[in-house]
This record gives sequence, C-alpha cells and structure tokens, in this order.
Amino acid sequence: MNGTPSIQIELIDQAAALLDKVRSLSPRVHCITNAAAQVFTANLLLAAGALPSLTVAQDEVAAFTQRASALLVNLGTLDPERRAAIPKAIAVAREAERPWVLDPVFVDVSPPRYAFARSLLDKKPNIIRCNSLEFESLSSRTVSAAALSTFSRAYQSVIALTGPVDRIVSGERSISIANGHDYMGRTTAMGCAGTALITAFSVWSDDHFTAAAAALLVIGVAGELAAQDAQGPGSFVPAFLDRLALLSHEQLLTHARISA
Amino acid sequence: MNGTPSIQIELIDQAAALLDKVRSLSPRVHCITNAAAQVFTANLLLAAGALPSLTVAQDEVAAFTQRASALLVNLGTLDPERRAAIPKAIAVAREAERPWVLDPVFVDVSPPRYAFARSLLDKKPNIIRCNSLEFESLSSRTVSAAALSTFSRAYQSVIALTGPVDRIVSGERSISIANGHDYMGRTTAMGCAGTALITAFSVWSDDHFTAAAAALLVIGVAGELAAQDAQGPGSFVPAFLDRLALLSHEQLLTHARISA
Amino acid sequence: MNGTPSIQIELIDQAAALLDKVRSLSPRVHCITNAAAQVFTANLLLAAGALPSLTVAQDEVAAFTQRASALLVNLGTLDPERRAAIPKAIAVAREAERPWVLDPVFVDVSPPRYAFARSLLDKKPNIIRCNSLEFESLSSRTVSAAALSTFSRAYQSVIALTGPVDRIVSGERSISIANGHDYMGRTTAMGCAGTALITAFSVWSDDHFTAAAAALLVIGVAGELAAQDAQGPGSFVPAFLDRLALLSHEQLLTHARISA
Repeated sequence: MNGTPSIQIELIDQAAALLDKVRSLSPRVHCITNAAAQVFTANLLLAAGALPSLTVAQDEVAAFTQRASALLVNLGTLDPERRAAIPKAIAVAREAERPWVLDPVFVDVSPPRYAFARSLLDKKPNIIRCNSLEFESLSSRTVSAAALSTFSRAYQSVIALTGPVDRIVSGERSISIANGHDYMGRTTAMGCAGTALITAFSVWSDDHFTAAAAALLVIGVAGELAAQDAQGPGSFVPAFLDRLALLSHEQLLTHARISA
Repeated sequence: MNGTPSIQIELIDQAAALLDKVRSLSPRVHCITNAAAQVFTANLLLAAGALPSLTVAQDEVAAFTQRASALLVNLGTLDPERRAAIPKAIAVAREAERPWVLDPVFVDVSPPRYAFARSLLDKKPNIIRCNSLEFESLSSRTVSAAALSTFSRAYQSVIALTGPVDRIVSGERSISIANGHDYMGRTTAMGCAGTALITAFSVWSDDHFTAAAAALLVIGVAGELAAQDAQGPGSFVPAFLDRLALLSHEQLLTHARISA
Repeated sequence: MNGTPSIQIELIDQAAALLDKVRSLSPRVHCITNAAAQVFTANLLLAAGALPSLTVAQDEVAAFTQRASALLVNLGTLDPERRAAIPKAIAVAREAERPWVLDPVFVDVSPPRYAFARSLLDKKPNIIRCNSLEFESLSSRTVSAAALSTFSRAYQSVIALTGPVDRIVSGERSISIANGHDYMGRTTAMGCAGTALITAFSVWSDDHFTAAAAALLVIGVAGELAAQDAQGPGSFVPAFLDRLALLSHEQLLTHARISA
C-alpha cells in the first residue's frame, strides 16, 4: 500500500462493510446491459449476494426498475429495444431517488451511441464507469486529473476510470487502485460486470465516490486471488466468481494497493 | 428418503430411465427462453444428451418447433420478437401434438408479462414450472395443496413448483423433492435451465407428472453432487454440467430425498 | 499424421505462425453472431489474443466493422435487427477489402434463413464454415469432393466443412483434419466460436484456404488437450479456453492429424 495509510484503511473497511451489506441485505439491481454481459453480470451480482434482473423490454423495465434499489445502464449492443428502454428506466430510478450508473461501452466507436450517451449525461448518472478511450470521447478531453475533476463536477457524477490502475474521481476527491490481473482483460464483459458491483454498492450511501472505489477494490483483489487459482483465462472466470463470493476483510487488507 | 418407499423407488427408476432415453435418443427441444438463460439452457440440454435450438425470430420458430419433440416457453426478457414468436411456436407444437412447457419467470413483477402469461394458460401448457411468487401471481391464490391441485385441474397442467423443496402436482397427485443446494440459487438461469430438462423428459410420456418430478430429481441430485466438487458458485456451474452428464441410477438411489 | 508429410508440416507451421500473429497483433474482429454464441465467441477470441466486438444494432455495425480487420457473419437467431445489420456490415467489409466469413447455422432448418443465406453468397464470403447438413442445404448437392470443389469455385469461397473430420476445400485444393473431441459437440456454439478463429486467422493472408485449415487445426488440438483436463462437458469449456490461450507449436506438431 502507498499513500496516506488512513485513507487506505478507511476504504478497505468501507469495502468490507459494503460487501457485508450486499451479502446480508441482497439488494435488487436492475441491469440494462449488453448481450455479451448479461450472464456474467447476473452471476457476478449473485456471487456477491445481490439479486439481478435483466429485462430490456421497453414495456417491462419500469416495473423491474421500480422494485430495484439501483439501476445499471450499459450501452453495449444498443439495439432499438434497449435504446427505448433506457430513458424509461432512468426516469423511474430518478423519480424514486435511486442511484443509477452509466457504462458507456465503446462510446468512442459508434457515433449514434456517442450521441445517445451525451443525451444521458443530462439525466445525471450518479456514477460513470469508463475506460480512457471512452472518457476522452465522452468529455472531448484527454485524460488528466483536471479533465476528470472538471467533468465530474460538470455532470455531478463520480467518474470511475478503469485500466491497469483505476482512478475514481469526484470533484476534488481522487483515489487510485492498482489491483487486478491481466486475465480480467481477457474475459469478455469483466468491466461491464464490475460496473454492476459498483451499482450494487451505490445503494446504501450518498457517498458514491466511496461506493465506486470500494467496488473496484473488491473486483481487483478478487481478480488477483482468482488468477492464483486459474490455469488460463477460461478457468479464471469461475475462479473469479468463487473468490468474490468468499472475499474477506483480511484478504482486502493483505492485497489492496490503494494510493490517494 | 421419506414417505412410501415404493413411490420413491418408482420415481427414481423412472428418472434413470428417462435420463437413459435422453442420452440414447437425443430429442430435439426448441427453447424460446430469456437472454440470460440461452447459453446455460443449451449447455444443460447438451450435457443431458438432448439437442437444443434457441431462435426466437418470429418467422423462424415454426420451422424449428416443427422438427422438435418438445417446446419450452420461458417468459424472461419478453421483448416484442419473443412475444410475437411464442404464440406461433405454441400453435405448431399443439398442432403436432408435442408437449409444451411454460416457465412464467417474474410474472409477479411485470404487469404486461402477467397478462401475456394468463393468455397462454388457455393454450394448455402440459407443465408449468414456477416458484411460489410466480404461482401466487398467476393463480391469484396463496400456495397450498388445495390451490395447487385446483389450478392444475383448471388448466389441465402439471404444476412444478420449485423452491427449497420442490412440489409437483397434477390434480390429486402430489410429490415433493428436497434435493438441491444453495449454489443453485446463486447461478443465473438455473431454474430456467431446469425447466428445459423437464421439457426434454416430457417427450416420451403422457405422464407429464412423472416427467416433471423425474427431471427435478435429476437436477437436484446433480446439484448436490456438484456442490461437493465446487469451491464456490462459479466453479459450481461447470461441475453441475459434468455431474449431470455422468449421473447414474445408483447416485439417484443414494441421494434422492422424495416424499409423497 | 497421414498423407504427404510436407503438407502437414507446412500447415502446422502456418497455424503456429498465425496464432503468434493473433497473440502479438491483437486484430479486431467484428462478430454478428447468434445469442447463444456471443459470450463464448468473445471469450475464444480473447483467449486467442484477438479483440472482439459484438453489436448487432443496424445503425452501429458499420462503425464497428470499419475499424475491424475481419467480419464474422453467423446466421443463428436471425431476428430482424440482425437481418438488417448483416448486409450493412458486409458492404463495409467489402468496400474496405477486409475478409468476411459466413457461418450459415441451421440453414437446413429454416426456409427464410435459407433464402437469406443464398442471397449472401453473391456477396462472396471469403470462407464459408458449415456442417454437412448445412452444406447440402446451401448447395442442393450431397457432400462429395466434386460437390465441395464445384461449390467453392462457383462462389470463389473456401469451404470449411466441419464434422468428426474437418475438410477444407478451395477449388482443387483440399485438406482434412481429424483432431477434436466429442465434448466439442456437447458445448453450445463451439462450431460458431471456431468460425470466429477462422475469421481472425483470415486477416493476414490472401490464402484463406490456409487460414481456415490452420484455425480448425488449432481448435481441434486445443479441444483434445482440454478433454484431458476435463471431468465432463461442463469443465471442458474453461479448459478449452485455457488450452487455446497456451497452445504451442510443439503441441500442434505432436497432436495434429492432417491428411491431404
């Protein structure tokens, strides 16, 4: 661990506490996510202790979002049904004052997806999880501490920028997490599914900065431990879910690589 | 094992015989199922020895259902394409006198799905697999022996109510199966995929009560054995498919927990 | 190994070289594939070292195909969105002179799918991967050396016919590969995902005959090695991805069963 010890210990304690809450309270999370991510997202939430639902049907998302404690909106495989469903689900979440989290997958590749993502920023996602290319596309700025802070402030969203080192930014607050393993980039939808844990952690706290950082810490440490069990990227997937299901406060303390 | 031994032994023998038939005759099962269940449903049927097909395209389901020996209709992720395809597939199955099985997932959550499910009851599903919340929504009654029996009789359907203890009811007949493991509830689409085995078992028998009970017995025992091999809910999934593929008559005899 | 040793050694060397290229250059492959194949296709490409994208949205496929080095078109679960997207993606690939590969899944079952597949033949797929039933449906001829050769010549496509023994045919050229394992037929979308590796291998060579044969050799040998690690068809899946990720030139030399 680097940086101010107290900040690190505080985040580890909060991550362990949020994981305990998910395990004991089993929050419902409605996930509008892409076709390649649906199964792994559901299994990750179940392994963590949450209860996922996944429908993207536009006449059904309101009912599912209404009973959920948080909403995940992932823009992958953005077909007309998902496109129509997303604003309806967000409207329900906002009306009910439930957090919603945006994952603008590949927004840097598809112009219609970019336009759609931009239109969602006005609906104030509590957290935006993206990689550097997606951030640069969405913000029209290169990644820097100033750009992240400015964008976070402009949209009143926490930015959870993932990569070899994850950076979580909310206005002036910033923290970095260096956990994880190469296999995570060789498993489809690992990032998308990680955003689902961010969404589950966002349920209990007005402090979405902590929720995002805690979830990415949990994902990263579970990934490192799973890589110890795996023979390659195939066996990494079930090992990751096993490790996530059993992850302990002590394992977080031992493995966390957090810097302020 | 509890209850009348002869009923238990009879079901175990029938389950082993149906499993042998699936393995040797490889029935085709067409599955209109939800996006989160498609892969696991297909892999479960293949592990059991059946041949799945999965298209939900409304102009294709008739051809696929026509050549299948049975039809599964699962109402998850009920988008317009699935909604249009389902009545077409059911019409083909009924015309060809092939069994069809209804899995009204989350019918308790989504009003349009509830209305759609109700409209399907008139098309006489041979078997309905659901949990308690779904049964109570669909029947407008709380779960009880009388409610299950009455509902089964009203729609001439076998009811396969799954939970910690599964109850299979057809008119006056009733049997309970207490096999299974907690990991089954932490794997997305385990219930949906179980319904696919019920569908495969329904091919050879006019006795759909036995088909449903035998399939749930097989699923439950395979789940218990898989849990012995698994490190957590992730490794449980491949272990479950392995155990299902290799399940023996002797393992059913040793592990079955059936009561009349 | 049977047949002319030089042809066999040449293919093994080329397969190892193409695998190295995928691992070091990480080509982007856009995959329009069926709902049951999307996750496994993406994970197979990632295990091999390629970068998959999967959207089937008709207003997005052009952008994704534009930046990809090759395009896979699989006709499974052929809903209206996929049907509309496929010609758009093919047009982009052809305009950019990138290879595209056709997998006409179940074209023998669904008349509208057959008609659609026939219409795609005019767009000159560089490679067509199919099984015997699909070939016979698409060509209106029974499988024979002459039928394969004639069909290949008529559409200027390499034919990669998969089964217990794979046959790759391009005009007069023909080669057979006898690698593989029964578990591959008990894993949903294994054939579809194999076509994705053919697509990745087609990126660097005008010799698509070699690309197709090399990819099927790699898949078959990885499958045999994975079967050694697996307890059944469930654990075969992660083992297959592990073996693919680590497959070596030496393993290809030791296990290849190629005949001219």
